[in-house]
Amino acid sequence: MPPFLAGLDPERLAPVSPPAAGSAVTLEIIAGLLVLFVAAKVGEEIFRRLGQPGVIGELAGGFVVGPFALGLVAPGETASVLSEIGVVILLFAVGLEIKTDELLEVGRPAAITAVLGVVFPIAAAPAFALFSGEPPATAAFVGLAFAATSIGITSRVLADLHVLDRRFSRIIIGAAVIDDVLALILIGIVSGAATGDLSIATLGLIVGALGFVGVGFAIARRARGLQREVFTWPLFADTPLVPAFILMLGLAILAHAIGLAAIIGAFIAGLIVAETEAQDEIEHEIKPLAQVFAPFFFAVTGSQLDLGALLEPRLALAAVILAVIGIATKVLAGVIGARSAGRWSSLAVGVGMAPRGEVGIVIVTLGLGLGLLSAELFSVVLVAVVLTTIAAPIILNLVIPQAAAETDAAERREPAGV
Amino acid sequence: MPPFLAGLDPERLAPVSPPAAGSAVTLEIIAGLLVLFVAAKVGEEIFRRLGQPGVIGELAGGFVVGPFALGLVAPGETASVLSEIGVVILLFAVGLEIKTDELLEVGRPAAITAVLGVVFPIAAAPAFALFSGEPPATAAFVGLAFAATSIGITSRVLADLHVLDRRFSRIIIGAAVIDDVLALILIGIVSGAATGDLSIATLGLIVGALGFVGVGFAIARRARGLQREVFTWPLFADTPLVPAFILMLGLAILAHAIGLAAIIGAFIAGLIVAETEAQDEIEHEIKPLAQVFAPFFFAVTGSQLDLGALLEPRLALAAVILAVIGIATKVLAGVIGARSAGRWSSLAVGVGMAPRGEVGIVIVTLGLGLGLLSAELFSVVLVAVVLTTIAAPIILNLVIPQAAAETDAAERREPAGV
Repeated sequence: MPPFLAGLDPERLAPVSPPAAGSAVTLEIIAGLLVLFVAAKVGEEIFRRLGQPGVIGELAGGFVVGPFALGLVAPGETASVLSEIGVVILLFAVGLEIKTDELLEVGRPAAITAVLGVVFPIAAAPAFALFSGEPPATAAFVGLAFAATSIGITSRVLADLHVLDRRFSRIIIGAAVIDDVLALILIGIVSGAATGDLSIATLGLIVGALGFVGVGFAIARRARGLQREVFTWPLFADTPLVPAFILMLGLAILAHAIGLAAIIGAFIAGLIVAETEAQDEIEHEIKPLAQVFAPFFFAVTGSQLDLGALLEPRLALAAVILAVIGIATKVLAGVIGARSAGRWSSLAVGVGMAPRGEVGIVIVTLGLGLGLLSAELFSVVLVAVVLTTIAAPIILNLVIPQAAAETDAAERREPAGV
Repeated sequence: MPPFLAGLDPERLAPVSPPAAGSAVTLEIIAGLLVLFVAAKVGEEIFRRLGQPGVIGELAGGFVVGPFALGLVAPGETASVLSEIGVVILLFAVGLEIKTDELLEVGRPAAITAVLGVVFPIAAAPAFALFSGEPPATAAFVGLAFAATSIGITSRVLADLHVLDRRFSRIIIGAAVIDDVLALILIGIVSGAATGDLSIATLGLIVGALGFVGVGFAIARRARGLQREVFTWPLFADTPLVPAFILMLGLAILAHAIGLAAIIGAFIAGLIVAETEAQDEIEHEIKPLAQVFAPFFFAVTGSQLDLGALLEPRLALAAVILAVIGIATKVLAGVIGARSAGRWSSLAVGVGMAPRGEVGIVIVTLGLGLGLLSAELFSVVLVAVVLTTIAAPIILNLVIPQAAAETDAAERREPAGV
């Protein structure tokens, strides 16, 4: 067994090829991961005891120990990988709780919400140009950055509040998938236009993305009622978990390779498994994995928040205004797109779409590279993206109980099974 | 959501602080991890269909896709971390199935096996010096490298064959813990002697190690019958898993900091939880984590095997002889130390102690640094360590059914409950 040679000069211990398991470096990284994990859980505990959403506590915990506050840990490669696997598992678990029928049933409001949720932020760009004095091209770019949605945090709030089976939750999720495809298409077009090369490659990207989502959906429809043995025929599979885990990571990587978010692939893997007879068992077995991996997603996200930029009043004001526009445009999209679901439900849809994710950051980074954005505006947009991410779960926590009560009331008027 | 911008020049996308979740680098690493994981599972499947131990298949799968064969993946930082967490979870799960009473009951045979298992390989050094022509100091160093035991692989075989509750399994595990403490002490002395500084620090190391194991054991004894609420009082703990996971990683890191193997800490965490009322539930919840993490331990270990050294007949012969001596000395220690357990059981104990782990590699690396070992001898010892690791599970698979039958027969003569 591998003791750490505390008494020895590490210089004298030439590393044997890759860092061996049990090496000092490996255990130092694990210690850093534990600090992140515990910070997330302590943050969750404090926020929940204060009656606030636990997920904000996990973000706050990551922020507090991260490089922009105490600096106890600087999440590196491994933390990023665990974070990504964490959000992949989250969206897989969301897919597991949804039937394709239920998703098709909300297709119309989801599509309208998604399209309006992309159109409105871009349409708001002139307003931003007006108050900021930025040139129109820059303003359009900022609008584009706010067209994207990050469903990871919303899906956690929906799960925490046990409302994943509600109509408004399915609209949010359906709209998020459509939003991601739209964002991919827009980025393809913008990057094509920027490089003066709106080519076949961009077209291929779009066809590939639509094909992936379409084929995945079709497979999920055909997977209905598949027996547990589809997953447990290998001898290594005592339970369906390992094959399902491989399917999840495989589709996540495939989605990423095509240009979509990895979590879209994981969500579709969940949709497929949800239709099979192994659903119950996998739903049960994925929970311990979600409990261990998901906190890394929130803690790492929190650790990346550079809230220091908010210290300068002028920038803070710009960021807050931008965040308010960002949230308002998504809320408006939800309220219009999902109005058939009810007043509070449509509001929940809009707020649920409000958190902006990494795609927003990728777009502004592209803008910085193209010289369209100043370094200052870049920071402002980043902080505004962060603000949408923090504000959304807090607002959701207020809106969702109302939306749930509203759907309960609607169900009492039209009893289930009719 | 974060699409990967397939159409864009990645040079233009300046990375935003640490690699963000969903970044191309992160997903490339995840793809490599998936290749390792699938290789381990395919290897397991093939070996089990051939009637061989699945764990050898996992090692073989890692070897095949690793840098010394196909070269599809080169396990890096993240794979090493997952591997280490995997073996930590394995030993935690082993601890979960053992009561301290059962461990105390085998204290005597375990201690004798451990001491003889350290003494014999060192005593065999003169024989090695004779046949190899190496100077005595070098031979002693090689003997020292073979004094250590790596319990990870054995514990997996014991779990696969459902014999963790047998007396011989408990002797193996008890002996492995004692062996690790002994190895730590020996390394402390050798490194102290090598640097001419057999100091208070070395003594502190030894006291710390003994104290850690002793205090951990005492806590486990006091934990008997503790209620589930000990783990579930935090709001974030819907189940006892997350607090138990934190305890496991915490003690693993503490053990490592003291100079013991991280897995000793994890094992003691398992012992503590095993005495509480949450044991059943945690045993159930840790399984999905073991299924996902443990294959990385075997695949990464397999990927580090440079079997190319076996191509040169002279070196291959030396490695095989060394491996045979290495296995024979541990088997002898087991047969003598655990003879009270029965003939086959004592053989199972000896073979179970045979796999040499990273500590052997650390010691020979130290010898290389001190100039006691040539590069050639270094490779030979590494290959021999690998051979003990591969041979042990194969032999265990033959011996354990006999040992189990023997203990069954013994129990029929002395019915349980008497």
